[in-house]
Amino acid sequence: MTSPNTYDVTAFVSPTGTSPYSDIGQVINEIISDIKANQTSSTTRPGAVIYIPPGHYTLLTTVMIDISYLQIKGAGHGFLSQETRDYDSSWNPATWREYNPGASHVVVGFNNTGPQAAFKVERAGNYKQVGRVSGLEFRDFIIDGAPLEAHTRPYDTRPHKIGIAIDSPTDSTIISGMCFTHTHSGVVTHHADGLMITNNFICEIGNCIELYDNPICPKISNNMLWADWRGYGVLIEGGDSAMISDNHFGYWGNLKITSHERGSIIGNKFTSWWPRSINVDVSNQMYIASNHLYRLKNDRPSDQVSFYDDDDGILYCNGARNTIIGNLIAVEIDALIPGSSQLNAIYVDGGNACLMMNRILQLGSTLPRLFVPVGSQDARILYSCTAAQNAVASPTAYVLNTP
Amino acid sequence: MTSPNTYDVTAFVSPTGTSPYSDIGQVINEIISDIKANQTSSTTRPGAVIYIPPGHYTLLTTVMIDISYLQIKGAGHGFLSQETRDYDSSWNPATWREYNPGASHVVVGFNNTGPQAAFKVERAGNYKQVGRVSGLEFRDFIIDGAPLEAHTRPYDTRPHKIGIAIDSPTDSTIISGMCFTHTHSGVVTHHADGLMITNNFICEIGNCIELYDNPICPKISNNMLWADWRGYGVLIEGGDSAMISDNHFGYWGNLKITSHERGSIIGNKFTSWWPRSINVDVSNQMYIASNHLYRLKNDRPSDQVSFYDDDDGILYCNGARNTIIGNLIAVEIDALIPGSSQLNAIYVDGGNACLMMNRILQLGSTLPRLFVPVGSQDARILYSCTAAQNAVASPTAYVLNTP
Amino acid sequence: MTSPNTYDVTAFVSPTGTSPYSDIGQVINEIISDIKANQTSSTTRPGAVIYIPPGHYTLLTTVMIDISYLQIKGAGHGFLSQETRDYDSSWNPATWREYNPGASHVVVGFNNTGPQAAFKVERAGNYKQVGRVSGLEFRDFIIDGAPLEAHTRPYDTRPHKIGIAIDSPTDSTIISGMCFTHTHSGVVTHHADGLMITNNFICEIGNCIELYDNPICPKISNNMLWADWRGYGVLIEGGDSAMISDNHFGYWGNLKITSHERGSIIGNKFTSWWPRSINVDVSNQMYIASNHLYRLKNDRPSDQVSFYDDDDGILYCNGARNTIIGNLIAVEIDALIPGSSQLNAIYVDGGNACLMMNRILQLGSTLPRLFVPVGSQDARILYSCTAAQNAVASPTAYVLNTP
Repeated sequence: MTSPNTYDVTAFVSPTGTSPYSDIGQVINEIISDIKANQTSSTTRPGAVIYIPPGHYTLLTTVMIDISYLQIKGAGHGFLSQETRDYDSSWNPATWREYNPGASHVVVGFNNTGPQAAFKVERAGNYKQVGRVSGLEFRDFIIDGAPLEAHTRPYDTRPHKIGIAIDSPTDSTIISGMCFTHTHSGVVTHHADGLMITNNFICEIGNCIELYDNPICPKISNNMLWADWRGYGVLIEGGDSAMISDNHFGYWGNLKITSHERGSIIGNKFTSWWPRSINVDVSNQMYIASNHLYRLKNDRPSDQVSFYDDDDGILYCNGARNTIIGNLIAVEIDALIPGSSQLNAIYVDGGNACLMMNRILQLGSTLPRLFVPVGSQDARILYSCTAAQNAVASPTAYVLNTP
Repeated sequence: MTSPNTYDVTAFVSPTGTSPYSDIGQVINEIISDIKANQTSSTTRPGAVIYIPPGHYTLLTTVMIDISYLQIKGAGHGFLSQETRDYDSSWNPATWREYNPGASHVVVGFNNTGPQAAFKVERAGNYKQVGRVSGLEFRDFIIDGAPLEAHTRPYDTRPHKIGIAIDSPTDSTIISGMCFTHTHSGVVTHHADGLMITNNFICEIGNCIELYDNPICPKISNNMLWADWRGYGVLIEGGDSAMISDNHFGYWGNLKITSHERGSIIGNKFTSWWPRSINVDVSNQMYIASNHLYRLKNDRPSDQVSFYDDDDGILYCNGARNTIIGNLIAVEIDALIPGSSQLNAIYVDGGNACLMMNRILQLGSTLPRLFVPVGSQDARILYSCTAAQNAVASPTAYVLNTP
Repeated sequence: MTSPNTYDVTAFVSPTGTSPYSDIGQVINEIISDIKANQTSSTTRPGAVIYIPPGHYTLLTTVMIDISYLQIKGAGHGFLSQETRDYDSSWNPATWREYNPGASHVVVGFNNTGPQAAFKVERAGNYKQVGRVSGLEFRDFIIDGAPLEAHTRPYDTRPHKIGIAIDSPTDSTIISGMCFTHTHSGVVTHHADGLMITNNFICEIGNCIELYDNPICPKISNNMLWADWRGYGVLIEGGDSAMISDNHFGYWGNLKITSHERGSIIGNKFTSWWPRSINVDVSNQMYIASNHLYRLKNDRPSDQVSFYDDDDGILYCNGARNTIIGNLIAVEIDALIPGSSQLNAIYVDGGNACLMMNRILQLGSTLPRLFVPVGSQDARILYSCTAAQNAVASPTAYVLNTP
């Protein structure tokens, strides 16, 4: 390649003589310095692509990104399920073929006590004076928070490790074809606009995706999102117009959205051992349609403790003018989580909710209910529960039971 | 690489000595000539890949494509939101980091008075005698219609520039990971069969996507489509069996389909300052399900004029035997667009329409309505408006109001 | 590139002097041997990427994959529709530009009498002792079962050829940007966990995708799946939690799921000349929502014989506690398939089915019906057929007809 803007971490000549296998973070930072040295004016900054070929790379230094249009790209997501291995005591370390994830495999080697990211996006200055970081792309590699050969349960306790932390305002970042695993958090953004996260495996991890500080129009679609019992599949705080569609949320399959407006939750699948798969709180004008929620029996090991109890709902929605159409909530529960008094499949609070043509499906011996508290105003609930499932306490609700 | 079918625009030795930075169009045309010189029989034409590394490339000559299986591929979509910058008067040109979009950035440098495309697909001869152009792929680069350093509002007036114009019959073209910005039109096709457009940012542009002349089975899914107030997010004229799914249509978030049959509009999000987000006209057997439409208050600058008024509907559907299920139309309008007499959220015309379980949500002070004119025959409208919102004039309609 | 883990089939020096154009299977097997020779311990097996540049490559030897994290990647899907060409007798072989598919084009050259795959994933040993094959990726190339220059109808009779056969347990395989054509089967898996198949063209082929032996959480989304009249778009036997979403199933657009639990079929489009587009059998807790099914008139050539007759249903669902919400089944049939007595648009059997807000749309002269046999227990059917379409025989069903 003769373009000056194409880098390969294994071909780059590090000025400090650093090997990408020893500290890929240091090498990528040196590449970014090289890009900046070559792209020096406001009109000549197209960015670059940094290629990470398949290999095991230790990262000891946080990659600091403050340029736009950087694409960091590997050749494969390389996920390895260690939970599947560890839950079967018959596995044989002597004959086992791969102990580690692979492909373009970035291993976060540090163990700081405070939060620290493998990749950090941070631009100095007020974004109104310097502009937002635009058009970043992270594609087709894996960020793995566990030291090599040390993957053990519970997969997310490496203190505070984050895969990608986007701290400054950004626009139109793409995260695609990636894997994040064994970190406290996969992707954490602040002030992100037009974020697109698609076609990823984010599994066996604390929190998959966390969006804070006014995320605008993020789109999270067609991903496998498997957070464990202490973490969020997706957590959104503030902002508006999120689109969360066509994902499979598993393990604790859960999506929490709080203080958000006008988000769309369409066509997702949730498979969960714990309550609150959809957890919409203090959010208005949300649209929750065509989702399939399945709550399994709570047969997990006793160290896998739930944040919520069965009173809290599986589809929980609290806010004003929310709309819930055509969802299935299938519930396979015999015994309630200790401390629970009821099994709420749908729990709707706030004013002017509209529920139409949802199905609550009882699979275990405990009856799942549709609950609307007394203080909730003017709910309209059409064909969303049977008479037996109807636990609507609000006197201003209109309910048409499914026969 | 030893394959003869892999090209890099920065490594190719131009027979005319042209630099890709001066005229990437000329260079790509020379590469295509080279491909044709090497692939000379009907049984030995596998095409090639042309790689565009990150960089700013001016295009002065239209790329003319008449071969199949060409993949043109960059290393990033490089979108820069200039609207966001320009609407905030506090931005500081002295400290601003990037004036231009980036990544693999093709800048359309000409300013013709007639329509002209950056990339044009056109094959001489009757397609029944020479065959259609098959299996083209445009991936991971940006086509930007604005001269460098000259991006100013309104983002789309560069006369008649088109990103990709597909004029001859084609089959199974893929457009993925691209950005189109600041042109009159992004993608324009004629006679396209099996087109797949996915994972793109097409933003701050006149029209995002226009399909003419009998498009068959196009699939437009998982894109960000932000046309401005004078353009279409997606415009389809004629053809059948389109699938428009899982997109976020913003700004004037709008989809127009006319003279089409059996299209599916499933699970999209529309955010719009103007009417007619879904605009289905003279089209039959359409299926419109699980979409979230949000109409904002009309507070845009006065030069941003609407094509439609509030009588025209936000979800408009005119044709025979159309089906509209489970959509949310949220309407935040206080004052009507001047000249409007009513605020129609849903406007359905034609025969045998079926609406079930849609919600019209009033957010402003003006009541949004469901309107069916007198001449519309045999509509079936179940739980899609309240009694107050019911403006069904057709005497043959059956309406069951939402309580 | 200096990474040892990046290969190009045209650059690799074959120890046997084999050309990738003569037998790409042999060359890739030699590359895999090279990878294994370099990656020798359980902690140093990141896999590799094998690049297939555009070109016509004959495959005579099955590629045998038993390593994890292998990415095989081309530069384009290269589909050529030969059905479209062959159905128009006016095509001119003298002027025709491309007889063959193209891009990164792997041509399966053998013609065995028994089943044989182009790519086979098989790991010796019990997977509990050696581990599953993880993180494979097949991207952006085409596997074509027809000999060069010999593409003729019916496109799938090459005996027993399979594109990719995954015989051993795997996890998180990605198949994306691929084309499979003219083979008996495209993708066949056994014991696959977390499979993701997205953004592919699998067309003019026998069966597109077949998943056997307990597939867990496969995700098949955003594909074009065009099986012919003798094959399956998707066939799933056993397993649980499949997510089949946002695909266009055409020709015999059909999806068969049997002995499966808790699958989600959301937002797909089916275009079909034959019955049983959705064919869910002996499967429980399935969720079938927001799909658009269109059954064309049966005007195909007489050699295109249906497996099913019109009694068998277009949307067929047999099992316990299944849920069917918001689908459109449009039926354009005048004369029944010989041997049929009725035209069933929806055929639901088994216990506790729930149907809400589906539409059966009559387009031909024959009335399509919703049929529930006598033995089916406790179906709840709300607004899913008109009185004329109601052919519910079960005495325990509750039916609320659409007016």
